[in-house]
Amino acid sequence: MSTNGERATHSRRKFYGWGLEDQGLSADEVQEHRKRLETRFETSLEATPAPRADEIELAPPRLTPPHSLSSLVSADHHERLVHTYGKSLPDSVRAFRRDFVKAPDLVAYPETEEHVAAILDWVDDTGAAAIPFGGGSSVVGGVEADVGDAYRGAVSIDLARLDQVLEIDHDSRAARIQAGIFGPALEARLRPHNLTLRHFPQSFEQSTLGGWIATRSGGHYASLYTHIDDFVESVRAVTPAGIWESRRLPGSGAGPSPDRWLIGSEGSLGIITEAWMRLQDRPTHRASAAVLFDDFLAGARAVRALAQSKLFPTNCRLIDANEAAGAAGGDQSLLVLGFEGKDHPVDELMRYAEELARDHGGSVQKPEGDDPQRSGAAGQWRNSFIRAPYYREHTTPLGVISDTFETAIPWSAFESFHSHVTNGTLDAIRSITGRDGSITCRFTHVYPDGPAPYFSFQALSTMDSMLDHWAQIKQAANEIVVDGGGTVTHHHAVGRDHRSGYDHQRPSLFARALSAAKRELDPNGILNPGVLIDPLRPSQWEDSELNRIRSISS
Amino acid sequence: MSTNGERATHSRRKFYGWGLEDQGLSADEVQEHRKRLETRFETSLEATPAPRADEIELAPPRLTPPHSLSSLVSADHHERLVHTYGKSLPDSVRAFRRDFVKAPDLVAYPETEEHVAAILDWVDDTGAAAIPFGGGSSVVGGVEADVGDAYRGAVSIDLARLDQVLEIDHDSRAARIQAGIFGPALEARLRPHNLTLRHFPQSFEQSTLGGWIATRSGGHYASLYTHIDDFVESVRAVTPAGIWESRRLPGSGAGPSPDRWLIGSEGSLGIITEAWMRLQDRPTHRASAAVLFDDFLAGARAVRALAQSKLFPTNCRLIDANEAAGAAGGDQSLLVLGFEGKDHPVDELMRYAEELARDHGGSVQKPEGDDPQRSGAAGQWRNSFIRAPYYREHTTPLGVISDTFETAIPWSAFESFHSHVTNGTLDAIRSITGRDGSITCRFTHVYPDGPAPYFSFQALSTMDSMLDHWAQIKQAANEIVVDGGGTVTHHHAVGRDHRSGYDHQRPSLFARALSAAKRELDPNGILNPGVLIDPLRPSQWEDSELNRIRSISS
Repeated sequence: MSTNGERATHSRRKFYGWGLEDQGLSADEVQEHRKRLETRFETSLEATPAPRADEIELAPPRLTPPHSLSSLVSADHHERLVHTYGKSLPDSVRAFRRDFVKAPDLVAYPETEEHVAAILDWVDDTGAAAIPFGGGSSVVGGVEADVGDAYRGAVSIDLARLDQVLEIDHDSRAARIQAGIFGPALEARLRPHNLTLRHFPQSFEQSTLGGWIATRSGGHYASLYTHIDDFVESVRAVTPAGIWESRRLPGSGAGPSPDRWLIGSEGSLGIITEAWMRLQDRPTHRASAAVLFDDFLAGARAVRALAQSKLFPTNCRLIDANEAAGAAGGDQSLLVLGFEGKDHPVDELMRYAEELARDHGGSVQKPEGDDPQRSGAAGQWRNSFIRAPYYREHTTPLGVISDTFETAIPWSAFESFHSHVTNGTLDAIRSITGRDGSITCRFTHVYPDGPAPYFSFQALSTMDSMLDHWAQIKQAANEIVVDGGGTVTHHHAVGRDHRSGYDHQRPSLFARALSAAKRELDPNGILNPGVLIDPLRPSQWEDSELNRIRSISS
Repeated sequence: MSTNGERATHSRRKFYGWGLEDQGLSADEVQEHRKRLETRFETSLEATPAPRADEIELAPPRLTPPHSLSSLVSADHHERLVHTYGKSLPDSVRAFRRDFVKAPDLVAYPETEEHVAAILDWVDDTGAAAIPFGGGSSVVGGVEADVGDAYRGAVSIDLARLDQVLEIDHDSRAARIQAGIFGPALEARLRPHNLTLRHFPQSFEQSTLGGWIATRSGGHYASLYTHIDDFVESVRAVTPAGIWESRRLPGSGAGPSPDRWLIGSEGSLGIITEAWMRLQDRPTHRASAAVLFDDFLAGARAVRALAQSKLFPTNCRLIDANEAAGAAGGDQSLLVLGFEGKDHPVDELMRYAEELARDHGGSVQKPEGDDPQRSGAAGQWRNSFIRAPYYREHTTPLGVISDTFETAIPWSAFESFHSHVTNGTLDAIRSITGRDGSITCRFTHVYPDGPAPYFSFQALSTMDSMLDHWAQIKQAANEIVVDGGGTVTHHHAVGRDHRSGYDHQRPSLFARALSAAKRELDPNGILNPGVLIDPLRPSQWEDSELNRIRSISS
């Protein structure tokens, strides 16, 4: 499997799984994975074969681009399949069911910002919807052309050809970067300048700068610079009402931050075409350690002390015993700790951090090998983290629901929240699927005032039932998390699948203000209708579990 | 002079200057100050006497509160004077000119959030405008009832009675705090819990939490936590359309941050009544140093290296030779450097920082005495920083324009920007007043991608000419800063006096989106009309220099 380096252009994207067609798990890994699930669920599992593009019939496109845009717009069968879904569990299930009824009519590949504007104009004039598409790695229904009958069709607008680093400002350590660039290509362009964005979401290889900004993605920094938000110096976007561009400023107090209105707007206010991003020097000093705790909650208290210490660890991931089992090989929770520095060694910071961890009952393991991040318990866990998205296309066809949800919550509420979520989700799985499931927890990011817990769960279902089972479990999880005081998402975005929780947690006046802003920028509501807020043009949707969690007023 | 501790309640606020009536400079300080200015401008200066309340006649209030609110609403002469202006230079000039023609009709003192809502309802029903008022320390015309003839009057809504710390969450290090609390009272309430907000704007003694949030104030942290923005966990506000309350979350990726829509809204979207704020432990380890540079720009390059080092100094203020002269006593620029830690000593961080400063030509002075922040060159400068606002009421009556403006700019643009601003402002002063003025520069905050330079200037005018002279200089400075690539304000807010620069720098679509959001929350445009955007109800304004920089469409 090749997962590193710049994006290969000779291989096509998978339309039903992660990465390119020549990327994925080895046959041995697939076999071992299935055995593990069979052991866990005490049953033998049969895999539905992966879909082939030629098995799937798509309705003919309802839209025809004007001649001036025809070279930028494709009705190619495979491209329409690739742009039908993101990479969520229901996306995977529907792909394995050969259900591509919501495929976009067309896929547009603008090569310039003027193209983006011209395509939006045409979509607007024609009464269709526009779905901005970066890497298509959404796990929340964020790129799905589920626009309903109030639109005369849907065009997926893929930004992949806007993929250049346009300008580098060394003194200010910033760069002007086009939105469609993928993670590996971006880092490859910055490396010769000894600079890095250092934003490594789990989707890094399959996601774009514009996607990160539009969805407030979470990177590898566990503290301090958690979301992409902090790295954005200015944003430029095309809206149906014109160009929105903020000024490059290291800081400002001139009114509400315009950037913070666009960051997290999930393609509903405009299509981000480029941004000035704050960069980092490549680190020259590192230190890392693994700390074991007998008790996850004791580990959480150690992390709280660390998060409030101003030591600002780069890595500070606490992984519960069940999730760490493969790596730590025991029944202890694992804290992966790391520091990075440029002008100064970080060993003393690590010493203070280890002291704090020991004070809270942690047992510090020293890293093994030359590259501490990649060896030992921490290294094993990290490797499996990066490869995790490749598993979905082998889990779904077995009828196993394997999914995650993530949140953030103040420290004072965390301990009861952890058991509320864990027990609530297990109860929901049992009552929905009729069988016991499993759930684990880790912290992906930590703040002085609370952690960002990330839950992974598995439940046994069947290919026929799992879309419905998943939607019920997701609905339950949204409710459990939001009723418990958390956010419905810390860094996966709202999209369509978190709407039921999101609508409950955000101020209702904020939704009204956001709709008003959208009406100003996108008067006909063509941009990504259904994410964050109800479409400006209401449609009829079928009454399904999935649409109920998407909470779209019909 | 007493300037510390909790706000005294037995003394009244000055209506023409800083602080309470029993606070201010000593007679000796006043005398010395005048001599300094006479020397600088090579002329003798005569002071206009301070205004007395009984010299000023106010028009009778055009509004009468309903009986249910009458105990909360005052038409008291002194209160109307106090709420007429903020503390800007034009405010000071108009006060010394006995010009209070724009006094609010009434001043309301809500004691509960229900009172705020009831007062807003009444103001809305009666066709008047509502001016939210915290400490009244605005230097940008942010609290002035300059609402024009489209409103049937104006009510200043003073939040001072909403001044409680309602709840403390020790585990999460956060507190729920009412918006009207002043800085010293807030810190006094947190101290017994060994907690601190540690947000010390220059206005600390005379400003409130709600005011800080509404205006994105800048605190004493020179890096990392520069604006109040970063300390806000959630906000609650009353709008004419109802209550807006965000959820307490340590971090979230659920759509655009609702808080970031309110932070910096300057009272134009709602009246902030309370917020959950992220607190700090009181620091137990400190280190500080003063570093001297022969050349301000060499100092700036040292600061750039520091800002990009991830050492995160708490204090990192570079002060040019002219401004530092009183403190450093020479012709060198002064860098005041400080670190704070709780769980860990910060001496090693300081050592790295000093090394970086030396690499850039700095000469490190060791601090003298027990309390390094308050002694030596750094200490002298700090003391004068805190006392500075008390000087205005003694400078203005001499006909001397003494004012500041502040901005932020990427590092790559800073050196040319610094000379562009310095020379441009001196040229403007010379051509507007017919005499040479002076200008100095310091950094108040620094970021990896650029500094926040703060300029102080002085120009000789007369009581008769200075409002017009100031408005022309301000207009020129707004233009110089914004044309040069800076922000029109880094932490003083936009208010009315920065409109001419702000309207140019912010995305025009953002202004439309903000207006649309305002129409949703405040349909009749009663909240602080004229700040940030044009009033929803346009009025006629007299054609004056001041109104031209306020850029209100008539």
